[in-house]
Amino acid sequence: MDFFEAVEKRYSHKTSFLAEGVPLADLECIARTGLAAPSGANRQSVRLIILQNRDDIADLCAISPTIGLETVPAAIAVLTDSRTYPGKGMNFEMEDYSAAMENMLLAAVALGYVSLWLDSPFFDQQKQDAAKKVLGVPDEMHLRAVLPVGLPDGPGTRREKLPFNERVSYGRYS
Amino acid sequence: MDFFEAVEKRYSHKTSFLAEGVPLADLECIARTGLAAPSGANRQSVRLIILQNRDDIADLCAISPTIGLETVPAAIAVLTDSRTYPGKGMNFEMEDYSAAMENMLLAAVALGYVSLWLDSPFFDQQKQDAAKKVLGVPDEMHLRAVLPVGLPDGPGTRREKLPFNERVSYGRYS
Repeated sequence: MDFFEAVEKRYSHKTSFLAEGVPLADLECIARTGLAAPSGANRQSVRLIILQNRDDIADLCAISPTIGLETVPAAIAVLTDSRTYPGKGMNFEMEDYSAAMENMLLAAVALGYVSLWLDSPFFDQQKQDAAKKVLGVPDEMHLRAVLPVGLPDGPGTRREKLPFNERVSYGRYS
Repeated sequence: MDFFEAVEKRYSHKTSFLAEGVPLADLECIARTGLAAPSGANRQSVRLIILQNRDDIADLCAISPTIGLETVPAAIAVLTDSRTYPGKGMNFEMEDYSAAMENMLLAAVALGYVSLWLDSPFFDQQKQDAAKKVLGVPDEMHLRAVLPVGLPDGPGTRREKLPFNERVSYGRYS
């Protein structure tokens, strides 16, 4: 799919998914695309866990039931390793993970799926800890988000953006 | 350009650019693609300043001379508005800006340019303040990065990534 078409078609799918599964090759393609994103000093803080089926997702969903996790046939959990940037003050985990997420959201679209940047279920520390336990994630790593991947059970809505000229200026901020 | 081809071709261009300018329509296309990225609760904290020519860039470059800024014919300054997320604890400026950056890096590639995620020149508070003054950026906003856009003056190097299986596991972290 054309790059700009993928950008245009991407939206946050916040309703149900069809039960139809996602081939592992597609999940690996999405993961590979995420890992191709840039990272601070190329240190690559991002790690991924491919969740291939409902069994893999059910425990996560039980910790934080959300409509995306309740129906989606596959997902990718997105982690960052806090040991990647040991120095004080310079930490690029957020940038690394967010760039990887955006690549994966677009890759999902390019392969014909819909997806969602699902971070809120694991902001709560107790839920974060429980989800990390379920996924076997070491203490030094953060579970940043889960990317559900599947086919939509009905159309989703692309939300309106502010007008271009309210967000862009030329030469100087205005 | 095919989405996956754009991902494949993207690299951080850390050497010189040709003097040849970038048409405004291309810069606006890159900006529009950045603004199409998702944002926390669709609040769209990102703002952009298109720097169309060397005159626009020279003052920034004087504040923090870097090889990218010294030769690049055009750039986009990327800001976030700290007033977007007034609540405590929930702030998505980093995610918003990073997703927009990734879209813009890929858009530049899709249009035949090279680019770079240039954030380090403005981490220093004094340089950040000086750059914001030059660009007329209000106190409440952060200058997160500058995206140089141009044609490469010679080939650039795509850095090696860690092997896929060192960064991806299945079902459970391993």
